[in-house]
Amino acid sequence: MAMDTRFPDAVVQVADTRIVFVVMDGVGGLPHADTGRTELESARTPHLDELARAAAIGLHRPVAVGITPGSGPAHLALFGYDPREWLIGRGVLSALGVGFPLRPGDLAARLNLATVDEAGNVTDRRAGRPSDEEGRRVVALLADSVATPEGLELHWRAEKEHRAVMILRGEGLSDALDDTDPQETGVPPHPVRALVPEAEPTARAVQEVLDRAREVLRQERPANALLARGFACFERYPSMRERFGISCLATARYPMYQGVGRLLGMDVAETPASDADAVRTVAARYEDADFHFLHFKYPDSRGEDGDFDAKVAAIETIDALVPELVALEPDVLVVTGDHSTPSRMRVHSWHPVPLLIASPFCRGGNTGGFGERDCLGGELGILAAADILPLALAHADRLEKYGA
Amino acid sequence: MAMDTRFPDAVVQVADTRIVFVVMDGVGGLPHADTGRTELESARTPHLDELARAAAIGLHRPVAVGITPGSGPAHLALFGYDPREWLIGRGVLSALGVGFPLRPGDLAARLNLATVDEAGNVTDRRAGRPSDEEGRRVVALLADSVATPEGLELHWRAEKEHRAVMILRGEGLSDALDDTDPQETGVPPHPVRALVPEAEPTARAVQEVLDRAREVLRQERPANALLARGFACFERYPSMRERFGISCLATARYPMYQGVGRLLGMDVAETPASDADAVRTVAARYEDADFHFLHFKYPDSRGEDGDFDAKVAAIETIDALVPELVALEPDVLVVTGDHSTPSRMRVHSWHPVPLLIASPFCRGGNTGGFGERDCLGGELGILAAADILPLALAHADRLEKYGA
Repeated sequence: MAMDTRFPDAVVQVADTRIVFVVMDGVGGLPHADTGRTELESARTPHLDELARAAAIGLHRPVAVGITPGSGPAHLALFGYDPREWLIGRGVLSALGVGFPLRPGDLAARLNLATVDEAGNVTDRRAGRPSDEEGRRVVALLADSVATPEGLELHWRAEKEHRAVMILRGEGLSDALDDTDPQETGVPPHPVRALVPEAEPTARAVQEVLDRAREVLRQERPANALLARGFACFERYPSMRERFGISCLATARYPMYQGVGRLLGMDVAETPASDADAVRTVAARYEDADFHFLHFKYPDSRGEDGDFDAKVAAIETIDALVPELVALEPDVLVVTGDHSTPSRMRVHSWHPVPLLIASPFCRGGNTGGFGERDCLGGELGILAAADILPLALAHADRLEKYGA
Repeated sequence: MAMDTRFPDAVVQVADTRIVFVVMDGVGGLPHADTGRTELESARTPHLDELARAAAIGLHRPVAVGITPGSGPAHLALFGYDPREWLIGRGVLSALGVGFPLRPGDLAARLNLATVDEAGNVTDRRAGRPSDEEGRRVVALLADSVATPEGLELHWRAEKEHRAVMILRGEGLSDALDDTDPQETGVPPHPVRALVPEAEPTARAVQEVLDRAREVLRQERPANALLARGFACFERYPSMRERFGISCLATARYPMYQGVGRLLGMDVAETPASDADAVRTVAARYEDADFHFLHFKYPDSRGEDGDFDAKVAAIETIDALVPELVALEPDVLVVTGDHSTPSRMRVHSWHPVPLLIASPFCRGGNTGGFGERDCLGGELGILAAADILPLALAHADRLEKYGA
């Protein structure tokens, strides 16, 4: 089984081994001004620290030096799909995340419910962060009331809070469209702009939908406008089983990450009710897959809130669950994040992300714990995120020797 | 002189400098369970340690993160031929290794003398590891008795112990053939399978040879079958002199490594009788080449034996020879391995390999010795094996400034 342009001749081999791959979303951080320690370094993580002392540790770069990744590309990279080769739009990831049955050629866009003032300028890009229920109500209104452009199908799905997805289905749709989200307040949403001449008809259709939506939402408050971004046409990806010969199960509480798993051919576990429930799911379904993707969202959420202490607490909550994963005795246990989300910045960042690969085949020798500075001295150095999966496969005896 | 796609515009320049490039085969390892120290870290290596304290040290990745290399690709990488660009089959390397005068288009395959039971299932992939003499006897029997397929030439060469090489010469041969070595016991050898339709005639010819060989060996014990792998047609490679402007001499005790040298246009010294003799050869012929490749096999052999202490001893034997190399006062002395062979794993592995480049132009500053963990903190970081040769050339003042 060929492994892609990354290793033209390397082949995966069958082995009776299991990999548990834990993503602590946004785990990487920056030092607290008072203590000089990052969120991960500040957290009491005795179990991760113990793992790290015997494991291979290092840092990974999600996409490239200095590049801040979105969640989609960052996860693709973790699963061995270099996002510079395997481009995928956020719209497609979101549509998959809400379980929409995309077909090749479908055009998906991610939507924010937003607030605009009487002049049409954006005053809140997230419409005051409505509850999930309120978000669903508004999206249902759009689904009921917005007329579909001629010759197309139009679908709406609520995602979470202010987030929604729009899908257009029809012949010849193009995703060469610029975002309408201006990424700032005080200005109006951008018009839908075609990035190539061939995308003009699609741009007109999408503009028509957004204009009608604006009419439908005129009396609503605070969600009286839509911002669209991440236009993307769906094309089928080769699955992780096809590329790496592993059956995979995704266990994640948020639709977005279930969607990433689905895109790569993973089975998706029933949505867990809590982080602890997610770990129980992995344990209960341990024999069902060679590769378990387990996603924890809160380090990222609390980082985006700018709440250093809450991010520390989110990390500590995950650490307390680590023994249950270790008890499964996976051949390889990977713990990392998809990207950094420093509380001080309140957004994703480009900073390399701590990484731990626990297996019997590590040099180890780290005398500290699991933190950004410990990882910097680790045997893995700073590597590309897309190299992690091959490395995990190697530790799981799932890669043949290259050449004789 | 162009240096390949790796450095599209870098040019080599003439200099009156010499590089001694020492390969301790399979030197990288994993920690001993009792001591936490690897084979290299456990070995008493005062001379390498002294070198390492003033040298530039680091680790190299033979092919790519997580990829375990065979000896051929690993050596190509060390000599600046990235094995992902410069693919070469083991058969060609083995044929060159036994000194067979390959011509472009020749098809070479590596053979194992093996044992099969009455049902035709492999019981020993190495026929009980016969002596070199016994191996030569069986191969001579094949050369005398196996009829040559019509329109082709057929050549047999013993390599070492159970290893041999088969060369077919003729028009239109293809190397798009799968191995017949099943890589496990209890199953029969695979039939010769063409990987593309154009290779069908070659597959039939090779199958004919193997079937006839089976008949010839029917009464032999334990070597009553052949397993073939690494089918490869020979094509001439640009030499190291062509690419890097250096005359090269290979000093190695095993044919395989002489073959790698020959493939890249190196002169090959008379086969040394011992490691000490190999060093004497380099000293005696020091003026004959700009670049001396000196190969030591035993760290790898003892690692593959799973004998930690014997691997330590093999490393110490080499260390004792280092002063004789230092006494030559090479402008650059490189010491590294082609890959790791942890005793605990008994096979090649993907782990980065310790590297030392001694020259007056190093930052140095290492206060430890020459070991995996010391190298991790070294000035070279973790680099690709194919970057070592350019780095050695740079230290030897053999690379022009890139751009004005």
